[in-house]
Amino acid sequence: MLGLMQDRPLALPHIFHRAEQFFGHKEIVTATWGGGEERTTIADWAVNVRRLATALDRLGISEDARVGTFSWNTAAHLELYMAAPCTGRVLHTLNIRLFPDQLTYIANHAEDEIIFVDRSLLGQLWPLTDKMPDVRHFVVIDDGCDDPVPDDPRVLNYAQLLAESEPFTGRFEVADENTAAAMCYTSGTTGNPKGVVYSHRSTVLHSLISLIADGPGLRETDVVMPIVPMFHANAWGLPYGCLLAGTSMVFPGPNMTPGAIVSLLEKHRVTATGGVPTIWMGVLPLLDDHDLSSLRVMLCGGSAAPKSLSEAFREKLGIPFLHAWGMTETSPIATMYSPRSHHAELTEDQRADIRARQGQSAPLVDLRLVDPDTGEDVPWDDVQTGEIQAAGPWIAKEYYKGEGGGAQFTEDGWLRTGDVAAADSYGFVRLVDRTKDLVKSGGEWISSVELENEIMAHPKVAEAAVIAIPHERWVERPVACVVVKPGESLTAEEVIEHLKPRVAKWWLPDAVEFIDEVPKTSVGKFSKKTLRDKFAGYKLPGS
Amino acid sequence: MLGLMQDRPLALPHIFHRAEQFFGHKEIVTATWGGGEERTTIADWAVNVRRLATALDRLGISEDARVGTFSWNTAAHLELYMAAPCTGRVLHTLNIRLFPDQLTYIANHAEDEIIFVDRSLLGQLWPLTDKMPDVRHFVVIDDGCDDPVPDDPRVLNYAQLLAESEPFTGRFEVADENTAAAMCYTSGTTGNPKGVVYSHRSTVLHSLISLIADGPGLRETDVVMPIVPMFHANAWGLPYGCLLAGTSMVFPGPNMTPGAIVSLLEKHRVTATGGVPTIWMGVLPLLDDHDLSSLRVMLCGGSAAPKSLSEAFREKLGIPFLHAWGMTETSPIATMYSPRSHHAELTEDQRADIRARQGQSAPLVDLRLVDPDTGEDVPWDDVQTGEIQAAGPWIAKEYYKGEGGGAQFTEDGWLRTGDVAAADSYGFVRLVDRTKDLVKSGGEWISSVELENEIMAHPKVAEAAVIAIPHERWVERPVACVVVKPGESLTAEEVIEHLKPRVAKWWLPDAVEFIDEVPKTSVGKFSKKTLRDKFAGYKLPGS
Repeated sequence: MLGLMQDRPLALPHIFHRAEQFFGHKEIVTATWGGGEERTTIADWAVNVRRLATALDRLGISEDARVGTFSWNTAAHLELYMAAPCTGRVLHTLNIRLFPDQLTYIANHAEDEIIFVDRSLLGQLWPLTDKMPDVRHFVVIDDGCDDPVPDDPRVLNYAQLLAESEPFTGRFEVADENTAAAMCYTSGTTGNPKGVVYSHRSTVLHSLISLIADGPGLRETDVVMPIVPMFHANAWGLPYGCLLAGTSMVFPGPNMTPGAIVSLLEKHRVTATGGVPTIWMGVLPLLDDHDLSSLRVMLCGGSAAPKSLSEAFREKLGIPFLHAWGMTETSPIATMYSPRSHHAELTEDQRADIRARQGQSAPLVDLRLVDPDTGEDVPWDDVQTGEIQAAGPWIAKEYYKGEGGGAQFTEDGWLRTGDVAAADSYGFVRLVDRTKDLVKSGGEWISSVELENEIMAHPKVAEAAVIAIPHERWVERPVACVVVKPGESLTAEEVIEHLKPRVAKWWLPDAVEFIDEVPKTSVGKFSKKTLRDKFAGYKLPGS
Repeated sequence: MLGLMQDRPLALPHIFHRAEQFFGHKEIVTATWGGGEERTTIADWAVNVRRLATALDRLGISEDARVGTFSWNTAAHLELYMAAPCTGRVLHTLNIRLFPDQLTYIANHAEDEIIFVDRSLLGQLWPLTDKMPDVRHFVVIDDGCDDPVPDDPRVLNYAQLLAESEPFTGRFEVADENTAAAMCYTSGTTGNPKGVVYSHRSTVLHSLISLIADGPGLRETDVVMPIVPMFHANAWGLPYGCLLAGTSMVFPGPNMTPGAIVSLLEKHRVTATGGVPTIWMGVLPLLDDHDLSSLRVMLCGGSAAPKSLSEAFREKLGIPFLHAWGMTETSPIATMYSPRSHHAELTEDQRADIRARQGQSAPLVDLRLVDPDTGEDVPWDDVQTGEIQAAGPWIAKEYYKGEGGGAQFTEDGWLRTGDVAAADSYGFVRLVDRTKDLVKSGGEWISSVELENEIMAHPKVAEAAVIAIPHERWVERPVACVVVKPGESLTAEEVIEHLKPRVAKWWLPDAVEFIDEVPKTSVGKFSKKTLRDKFAGYKLPGS
């Protein structure tokens, strides 16, 4: 027997029209190149979305075309976030930190017909355009930068294009909620980048999660600044969540220095924000000179943040990070921290340990921990670890064009995340490592992430990454690559002495190497792959 | 182009298994007949749900049978809330306040195969059982009452049934999210009651709404007491929301006196609760003797509450009502109040006016105001009024067996709610009346609800209802039916004098009649219909 409820699709036009109708007076601030700011309102933003809808038609962009963006976090980017999917097209956010070969690969693989590009990023994109034959138009968005714009018939001006296009006057309609809304490529460690395709349904459901109280809890009275890039997994869904909740918004634009970010947070009395640990490491030393007392929520994700970093913010600002975990394939929020009634009995230090975890699976998401060797479920006893596998309405079931399927998805349709974790009986996940970053020593696993966090808790350490080096007897042994804070000095012996009371003896790294910087991926995570390449052929002491 | 997200249904088994896995340690308290209490945990509750699943199979209940309940708010009722839909069956909550004829009608119309009945309610149901030929079993739930239980082969004992049934050991699966999960009959003012059939999809989406921060914002640390009956529109979705969020729960059971309720709120440090205005009117005089400082959210809905009542609570407890509006056909939450950034500039009194409204449409719900005469959309200018029509994934599209369709649903598939409202430009709805309760005087409308609220703000008035009386010249004129507080005395002239500075002159009632009590419907709302019947043939003064 079927229910008798209305067949209304879960689709982005609802979020657009709701924002336009109820929240037109709310403000959107965008920081521009060179330290300026542009202000608009949701009402004016909505008019631009309606103009863009007409413009895409006028330019003859196909009905379900991929619409590329190569942009910072800006109000204009947010216009594209709505105009592409609300007209049935697919927003394709290109990651500005990719290598040229990867960029041309994904623009061609997605068959982007048009790319909207910020003027300050044009110099990076333009040399590749001749290798992107499907892209008929490059629309340059003024972000305050005065870099030269090529005189080329493919180049259009964003403001002019909007001015020449009358606003679409009707209601946007997307009848099938499973229609593609947006896509984002994930650069795996092997092979070509793979396309993750979000649907309207997955995007709307994921947006609701950013409103729930045991989570970011976005509400109309919030002022939200998404620092995590809008070219990376939809900025964790924050932009759509903001529009659904009707928050004010602040976008940091092209200047992503810690100084610029902390100034924006202070000036606009931001209440909720989100970024990767690297961002927060940069902001931490600046806290004493800025009043961030308006902050209520600091989302932190992308990679496991050291407890010491989160606690440093808690001590300064009174709020710890709200840890979340996920990846492009999970929309990306799969788990979130939130306080639990049984935490009330714990000491502050015990609570800090729990806050440093990645939290509990979000409503509608199912997780399981699977032993990568046996394929068996691992019990949630907080000791045994397994690969996290995920299922849910905003978890990918395959990659674009069916590529890379076999390895990443299980036979029963769950996503293999490649992250290894333990979970306590309350479902609080503790990331231990990436499957490929675990150090397998004598048949036992050593968590490189845990070693890194302990080393990074040392007051003289800026960053640390631990990699596995082949070992004749133990198969692999850990080596710590450590970046010392400017002006400090540190010896390998001091690092080992610092670790001794904190980890099992057999976990102690066989060597400590001092490096200038931990190499980062295009989304700011530690690139263990680059580090492993650098240390290929490394000889362990005594071997 | 389609998205490539997993096809996971929005279905109640997810909420069940999530609660069982993460929140097994959380407590559920049920008040029993005679002032006792029973305590259980979500873990033990889940075992009972699993036992019930087996029991329903053992008794040969059809795969998609309607499973009736005739119960108070209890942990056992919550077991049925999950066991019926998780096994593919349909929970049918029978309203214990219906007249015998209506009860037999809906049990037969829904073709209930089994009814679970609280022992204290058995005396009310048993005389009707011979008129319910489809019902093969009446399962009596012990609620602490020792009323006699008939010696009849159709009668089973709930505890014994569970004890004899092994817990189902697998995962519940509902593959199609549009499968019916629950049904509830709505007693219209004309004709037979009509069945509203909720789907798994609508129920899961509606449950998420009770978790959002601009709403009840249920979270794991909450202790929730649903006072609104579980036989009435799923107790506003609170039970499912509690299980999704992992809150502790307190159920008031059979003793619904204000004294019992206020004691439970105090004793269990309840943080979130919900009930109709009548309940809160009863609780108000008891506040001085009880410590309700734990309360964070008081949901109020079912009918428009007078501002004076909400403000009285705000003055005593520091929190005003969280007004919500909806009906059985809307699952029921269609609108909710929440504070808005632009309210910050208002005076406390202006804010009180806004809080007394029904709020803004919930995410995923669309509303429009339609002139009942012309069928045209009415602008949201806070002045012009129209019938609220609703669309969304948890709004009914038709009644069970297609009955009553034409009048209640528009051609484009929206629900006609029968409630008349104005809305401000921010979408904040202000209920004015029921379409059939409006007083049409000289071609203009008078809001009976607004008159009632003004009269009820008089310190000597307990309750007031305004009805339309036919009038030769003006077509209709208002008459106020007033209940004076015990020990007070009041004259018609005093009522009119009280109204004069508050409403337009032509709104002043033509007569004030003092009555002992405003008649109530089965769900505790003012029954204008009964009142109109009582005053049929009433002669207005001077006519």
